[in-house]
Amino acid sequence: MIGSQGRLFGIGVGPGDPELLTLKALRLLKAAHVVAYFVAKGKKGNAFSIVETHLSDGQTRLPLVYPVTTEALEPPLSYETIIADFYDTASALIAEHLGAGRDVAVICEGDPFFYGSYMYLHDRLSPRFDVDVVPGVCSMLGGTAVLGAPLVYRNQTLSVLSGVLPEDELRRRLADADAAVVMKLGRNFDKVRRVLDDLGLAQRALYVERATMTNQLIVPLDEVDPMASPYFSLLVVPGEKWRG
Amino acid sequence: MIGSQGRLFGIGVGPGDPELLTLKALRLLKAAHVVAYFVAKGKKGNAFSIVETHLSDGQTRLPLVYPVTTEALEPPLSYETIIADFYDTASALIAEHLGAGRDVAVICEGDPFFYGSYMYLHDRLSPRFDVDVVPGVCSMLGGTAVLGAPLVYRNQTLSVLSGVLPEDELRRRLADADAAVVMKLGRNFDKVRRVLDDLGLAQRALYVERATMTNQLIVPLDEVDPMASPYFSLLVVPGEKWRG
Repeated sequence: MIGSQGRLFGIGVGPGDPELLTLKALRLLKAAHVVAYFVAKGKKGNAFSIVETHLSDGQTRLPLVYPVTTEALEPPLSYETIIADFYDTASALIAEHLGAGRDVAVICEGDPFFYGSYMYLHDRLSPRFDVDVVPGVCSMLGGTAVLGAPLVYRNQTLSVLSGVLPEDELRRRLADADAAVVMKLGRNFDKVRRVLDDLGLAQRALYVERATMTNQLIVPLDEVDPMASPYFSLLVVPGEKWRG
Repeated sequence: MIGSQGRLFGIGVGPGDPELLTLKALRLLKAAHVVAYFVAKGKKGNAFSIVETHLSDGQTRLPLVYPVTTEALEPPLSYETIIADFYDTASALIAEHLGAGRDVAVICEGDPFFYGSYMYLHDRLSPRFDVDVVPGVCSMLGGTAVLGAPLVYRNQTLSVLSGVLPEDELRRRLADADAAVVMKLGRNFDKVRRVLDDLGLAQRALYVERATMTNQLIVPLDEVDPMASPYFSLLVVPGEKWRG
């Protein structure tokens, strides 16, 4: 009976600049019956803001509101349990639309499969429904573009790391990388900065907040306010230039 | 006098599907006086094929024809010397257009700063001219999308590796990665396959040739013909699923 079901689309909408939407994302987005998106409570949502002007009144908006804004919760609360329940519920909501024959586009900042919340819906729904994933420009490459920083030359290796990692693991992995990008800085900035200093990489590192968004900020590493570094900030250690 | 000079645009045109062009890439591409692109001798070029239908007759095409097709040359020939001369010459050609006040768009498969030949022009020209880089959907994420393979969950690390690396380095880096992508497979397929088998990763690995292009091919690892694996093939080892 899959023929009478709706299709699920996981659509990357790029890092922030609405012009970094792909033609394919735009076409599928406009055709979807339902447009679903993750959003923090009381916020509009970055992904939704990117595509908003392209939607028509007839399309159903389905905000998926995160129940928590931090992974650091006091027992008996558990982030893992709360968030798993949330993804279960969100998947059930989407499955209802799909079951009724409505196509659902889940819009995702950056790329759907590159650290995206969409992946948790995908893993739950792709065994049961037809799914298409439309890749997007990821935040990492939005960042290197606005920084004017070629990332990886020839056969250099690239390590993409989360700022959440323990300091010793960050140190080990950064020491071993030809080029690196550290995502999810936020409150981890001080720790990451310390590691860069230890390894003599601070001079090579570049920093950007909210790359390609209207409130993008590029500042030298020394001028970053570690208390104000947002989640959507990136540290880039470009590969050594090869003259080529 | 920079005001009377043309602007240089490094424009990512995505992994192959012409619909994966961004709105920004399309706008800037149509407005450029000169459209430059790398191409192998006697070929049309992947990047050019992606954008061809969008160009008008009044725009100058500037093919930059690679002088060699392999890095393995017999002495006294040296790939490094030949290719550096080539990038010098290509940069001089582009500088002439820019100096005459013409905007030049260099189109790049995937993303300009993610293993792109554009980087060598960028390093030569960005100190002298105004440059904008438009990020694109990289081949790696084109690959994971068509494979339906969520790549990195939560705080997993991602290692992007070149298949050209020595076998022991590939083994060490793959053993240490939560998720990995091996680019530039081609004739290195057998070596990479051996490493995956050694590490018990072959079951998790996925393979795709020319992701999102019309001649895309997805085959199980065991059915890959190692003699016919093209340069534009990818091996993906997705991160372990997190239920989330």
